[in-house]
Amino acid sequence: MSTQRDRDEGEVRRRLDMIVEGIRAKDAGILERVYAADVVSFDVEPPLRHVGREAKMRNWAKVFTFFQDVGYEMRDLTVAVDGDVAFAYCLARLSGTLQNGVATDGMWVRGTFCLRRTDGTWLVAHDQASVPFDLTTGRGVADLEP
Amino acid sequence: MSTQRDRDEGEVRRRLDMIVEGIRAKDAGILERVYAADVVSFDVEPPLRHVGREAKMRNWAKVFTFFQDVGYEMRDLTVAVDGDVAFAYCLARLSGTLQNGVATDGMWVRGTFCLRRTDGTWLVAHDQASVPFDLTTGRGVADLEP
Repeated sequence: MSTQRDRDEGEVRRRLDMIVEGIRAKDAGILERVYAADVVSFDVEPPLRHVGREAKMRNWAKVFTFFQDVGYEMRDLTVAVDGDVAFAYCLARLSGTLQNGVATDGMWVRGTFCLRRTDGTWLVAHDQASVPFDLTTGRGVADLEP
Repeated sequence: MSTQRDRDEGEVRRRLDMIVEGIRAKDAGILERVYAADVVSFDVEPPLRHVGREAKMRNWAKVFTFFQDVGYEMRDLTVAVDGDVAFAYCLARLSGTLQNGVATDGMWVRGTFCLRRTDGTWLVAHDQASVPFDLTTGRGVADLEP
């Protein structure tokens, strides 16, 4: 028998599925329904943080101009939820064809999603996505496989 | 009048204060009391993830050999908590003197902490820390200021 917490976890997972769906379709309309108006986002690329849904959506627009077509896959998505607060994390693989026609195998990033439920809807209030940083060379490490 | 949620948020903040305290004192004994046994950590440096408290503590040991003395400061720590689940995020500045005597002004990293309360104790079940990655140069961007 499913508990309230199981049902809440299902809702959180469906909300995060919208990120996958929105990226693959390059559909900003889907993505903007995922984020809280005051989301604080620590994204893969600079700056240190985006504050607010509009800034986050401008970043997605930039990603979408970078790729002709884009793939996104989440692996090992783990979710914890209690009441109206949830967090989730996974490894995610971003791949696709760049505007210059070069196909990229993809790069694995680490994704953390922190959600709050407001008026019955789970929204991402904070997220962080990154690749590791090699302190000795100063390079981002974008070729690691899980 | 403080609510249960206020008191829980205070407990979460005090647990995260132990990270600051443990780093500044280079005290692994303080730090290991912060993490769940099965913590999954996406750290600044490779690999993609550490699984388990022992792996996380080995990483702290590595950081402590890198620095003679080390400073750590959290800015704009935001906490959300409900029931036994919480998340928190901040910008954090790591500074200090390297083993070769060179002092470093420090590097700002983005920190996200996801906690669960088990048997009355808040523990970090997941965290992510990173610097942004410049896709065009392949470099980590470690010189940004908030």
